[in-house]
Amino acid sequence: MTEHRFTPTAYHNVLGTLPPALRIRSGDTVVTETLDAAGFDRESVQRASSPNPTNGPIHVEGAERGDALRVEILAMRPNRDTGWTRQSLAANVVDPETVRQLPRPDKAIWAIDPDAGTVKLKENLPGLENLVLPLAPMIGCFGVAPELGQAFSTATSAANGGNMDYRGFGPGCTVWFPVAAPGALFFLGDCHAVQGDGEIVGTGVETSFEVEVRLTVEKGRHLGWPRGETAEDIFTVGNARPLDQALQHATSEMLAWLTSDYGLSPIAASHLLGQVVRYDVGNVYDPAYTMVCRVAKRWLPKR
Amino acid sequence: MTEHRFTPTAYHNVLGTLPPALRIRSGDTVVTETLDAAGFDRESVQRASSPNPTNGPIHVEGAERGDALRVEILAMRPNRDTGWTRQSLAANVVDPETVRQLPRPDKAIWAIDPDAGTVKLKENLPGLENLVLPLAPMIGCFGVAPELGQAFSTATSAANGGNMDYRGFGPGCTVWFPVAAPGALFFLGDCHAVQGDGEIVGTGVETSFEVEVRLTVEKGRHLGWPRGETAEDIFTVGNARPLDQALQHATSEMLAWLTSDYGLSPIAASHLLGQVVRYDVGNVYDPAYTMVCRVAKRWLPKR
Amino acid sequence: MTEHRFTPTAYHNVLGTLPPALRIRSGDTVVTETLDAAGFDRESVQRASSPNPTNGPIHVEGAERGDALRVEILAMRPNRDTGWTRQSLAANVVDPETVRQLPRPDKAIWAIDPDAGTVKLKENLPGLENLVLPLAPMIGCFGVAPELGQAFSTATSAANGGNMDYRGFGPGCTVWFPVAAPGALFFLGDCHAVQGDGEIVGTGVETSFEVEVRLTVEKGRHLGWPRGETAEDIFTVGNARPLDQALQHATSEMLAWLTSDYGLSPIAASHLLGQVVRYDVGNVYDPAYTMVCRVAKRWLPKR
Amino acid sequence: MTEHRFTPTAYHNVLGTLPPALRIRSGDTVVTETLDAAGFDRESVQRASSPNPTNGPIHVEGAERGDALRVEILAMRPNRDTGWTRQSLAANVVDPETVRQLPRPDKAIWAIDPDAGTVKLKENLPGLENLVLPLAPMIGCFGVAPELGQAFSTATSAANGGNMDYRGFGPGCTVWFPVAAPGALFFLGDCHAVQGDGEIVGTGVETSFEVEVRLTVEKGRHLGWPRGETAEDIFTVGNARPLDQALQHATSEMLAWLTSDYGLSPIAASHLLGQVVRYDVGNVYDPAYTMVCRVAKRWLPKR
Repeated sequence: MTEHRFTPTAYHNVLGTLPPALRIRSGDTVVTETLDAAGFDRESVQRASSPNPTNGPIHVEGAERGDALRVEILAMRPNRDTGWTRQSLAANVVDPETVRQLPRPDKAIWAIDPDAGTVKLKENLPGLENLVLPLAPMIGCFGVAPELGQAFSTATSAANGGNMDYRGFGPGCTVWFPVAAPGALFFLGDCHAVQGDGEIVGTGVETSFEVEVRLTVEKGRHLGWPRGETAEDIFTVGNARPLDQALQHATSEMLAWLTSDYGLSPIAASHLLGQVVRYDVGNVYDPAYTMVCRVAKRWLPKR
Repeated sequence: MTEHRFTPTAYHNVLGTLPPALRIRSGDTVVTETLDAAGFDRESVQRASSPNPTNGPIHVEGAERGDALRVEILAMRPNRDTGWTRQSLAANVVDPETVRQLPRPDKAIWAIDPDAGTVKLKENLPGLENLVLPLAPMIGCFGVAPELGQAFSTATSAANGGNMDYRGFGPGCTVWFPVAAPGALFFLGDCHAVQGDGEIVGTGVETSFEVEVRLTVEKGRHLGWPRGETAEDIFTVGNARPLDQALQHATSEMLAWLTSDYGLSPIAASHLLGQVVRYDVGNVYDPAYTMVCRVAKRWLPKR
Repeated sequence: MTEHRFTPTAYHNVLGTLPPALRIRSGDTVVTETLDAAGFDRESVQRASSPNPTNGPIHVEGAERGDALRVEILAMRPNRDTGWTRQSLAANVVDPETVRQLPRPDKAIWAIDPDAGTVKLKENLPGLENLVLPLAPMIGCFGVAPELGQAFSTATSAANGGNMDYRGFGPGCTVWFPVAAPGALFFLGDCHAVQGDGEIVGTGVETSFEVEVRLTVEKGRHLGWPRGETAEDIFTVGNARPLDQALQHATSEMLAWLTSDYGLSPIAASHLLGQVVRYDVGNVYDPAYTMVCRVAKRWLPKR
Repeated sequence: MTEHRFTPTAYHNVLGTLPPALRIRSGDTVVTETLDAAGFDRESVQRASSPNPTNGPIHVEGAERGDALRVEILAMRPNRDTGWTRQSLAANVVDPETVRQLPRPDKAIWAIDPDAGTVKLKENLPGLENLVLPLAPMIGCFGVAPELGQAFSTATSAANGGNMDYRGFGPGCTVWFPVAAPGALFFLGDCHAVQGDGEIVGTGVETSFEVEVRLTVEKGRHLGWPRGETAEDIFTVGNARPLDQALQHATSEMLAWLTSDYGLSPIAASHLLGQVVRYDVGNVYDPAYTMVCRVAKRWLPKR
């Protein structure tokens, strides 16, 4: 297995079938530095434009339509000491009549201390003087080229992944994407130092990062939607609007997983999900919302 | 403060302005035994009919429109050794094309051991042989009479509470409901031994319970939606379809709470929520879905 | 058959199981004067309060749960020469980010000339100087008591009808409501001189009316949702949020109607609906939205 | 002005920034033959694969981001004597619990007589023996390349148009698309001999067509969503899920049009829309639903 250091010469605002910027073998690791959502790098120099310029595509040898690309998030470290957020709840996460009460969505700056593992608003706002958040890195936007030669903006997400903005996509998490194009064509960008559920101000704490991932092809998995695993859980991801439909996608994918890989009948899978399932709201801001369907591994039968 | 033991002579399938079955003073506690969702009691005798027959209404002296009724869930103990669930995912939580693959929604029986604190499916299904869930009692349906003399089925929920089916409504949780009718008129029923997020099989483990609550009037709170508190969190509750709208209600109510009671400006509240908010899916099965907006108390300024 | 002139002594803000204000026999006609949505009568005197105070309930002899109440709208005539509207698009019918651009939802006054059959804004606004609309009376809110002893605000609607705000409910239209309570308990109010699709400013031209309806019990019809008929069409009505669900209700009810009463197989009904169905947006403003599924009678087989 | 006869050598399943297949000048007309949704031509030979293979892209000289491409649908004539439909309501247009009652979505064949102007199911189904529909040609899928170098499947639609499946897109209709890529890059396919509102069986009567359009660049129009005009109406189009959001897009675009081009204030535009607007459901089947916001020209001020 090879470790690649990947320094892009161009960044992309779509996930699509673009010429590979890097070719690797299945099981290789890649270390790369991502720009923030507005395209600024570790030196706070703008290298690309909004939305969410991504590194890639990375072509993984042997990946074909019907396979899964396993992405292990091995390490994430912010590489500058500030990030930014919007300072207003997004208009679509409050009651329509409440929109007029929202402040203007100007930017605010946060201090990031990777060594202390903290994130803190730079401005001193009454009531937030003591708010020091633990650094909780996550990848906002990653995925593979979608099917049919489509290309989707890095502002949104679909079955191929994309801008899911789920705070669970941090170090230690493994994600599987359904491969649609030869080589999978993996893209990665828009990392956050911390983010609440839903990305309801339209951002997490947006900054540049050094990220290390391992990319591995799993043949013939035939996934419908992204799947994931952490130390405690397995999970599936649905991306759509409204949230109800994102939840339907994620739940249907989990039902498929439990019945195909864990030997559960539809009745047994229903019983299990009915009493132990957890849902996480990934994002409710982007054009497609993200809902995660999660099951603790302690409840699963041995595979 | 008085402790009342309340044994209903009738049960109700609506939350509305009905004649009080019990009159108490603010701060009194009530111990009562609830039927299961289908109306069966501790002896497995059917005492009332579906959906979710409730105990009440309890008239709390001094409660008026604009007040809040604080409900402290002091204790919950199942009082029989079985509960039941449906054995199929609900049709509305999977992709429409997946509905045809679902099993029939027949009932299944679970064994409940209150002393061991466990819940286990009685039937031995492959893969679930070792599934022993911890008892996690919760109130499925509770709330007060809605405004305008309305009366809502105990199958659904609204600003006055009702059938929210949120697994967080267990012992140790405090909930505030917006009072609309004189005396608040509190109803309670449909308790579950355990339930996953969303109540996605249409039930938790449905059984009869002994429940103890303390009911206290807080004057002039002017809530829009139910609010709650646990040892770790404060939270707000939105009930509506689609989930997006339930989330909007809950988020707007949290914004109102943070700005009115915690001294945060809309900008400060946005910053806080944006980076620390958590959403829980209460139910995605009932006519109104339930979304919970939750903030850990450790991040809140002192009130 | 008797013609009743019904002058209410009280008005209601809910549709529910209230004591009958009038008792009639099936097939009788009723003439009554309705208040406008804010409770003002023909003399512009406020007789009741918002929302949408209704006349009723009218108890129709012999109506029982499972029956349908047929309501023929025989005549509607505004009985004063002004009506009012709100002057802003509702916040929920535009993109969330557009809400801030909306004007304030103040009231505007319109002149109504029943003899000329015209409705015209009283204020002279640039571009609307020549806007003279044809009088197009419709009933905003009507229906019967809902099931289970529920009572719903006249601001919303459900399977029992209510505040559907569909411009098709005018003279010549016949509507069937599913009876849930003995006597059906019919309510009527909130008539409009004219209204666009969706009631997207939150009102039609709101005014007081004299309305004549004939109420007839049809035994054992077992409707799920309101149905209707005009000279050209049959139609079904779904009331829910989001619009998608209202459309699902209306379409499912039409499928049931075509297969049970018109002898069409599910395949034949699908073919017919697929190529000739029309949908009308009733309202997209009220708590429940209204979608109408409509089929021209010229395409229907003989019953 | 030149009339081009365009015979594609390849067909496309995406709308995106692909190499132009034809270059024309603004104001030129194009006559082309389209395949049906499954890729079959006038001889019933399959020339391309699903979904909805399109002719194009046509590069229109001078079109730049911010411009509008005006598409006049001059003529449409089916060029074979059969079309096909699915024979079942789609799963997503009925209540989730009703899905199990739907027939299988097999294909059915219809006879098309362009000279008589009729469309008739070939199979004789009880109740449909006399169902002869008037030929009502429409374009299911057309539009321009989306922004940012994106490429969207011809199964769906967005701000750039696409598979909107609106029965109003027939001869005599003019449509404007927001240009995002140089030359606009116009695509066209998936024409229907007739279709009901919503495309609720997942198809209209799908067949191959000869279509004539005139393509004209209008500089600097800065549309947000497609707009259209017929002899009677102007209209705007929103494409999204749920229907509520499609309606919000269409209504916001109409508000923008009325205030920018017709000199109406937001208040005047609200008054006009509130009392005269009509909504048409384009499709409720495709990944993005389509809602049309329509105003009769008789109510508009002179421009």
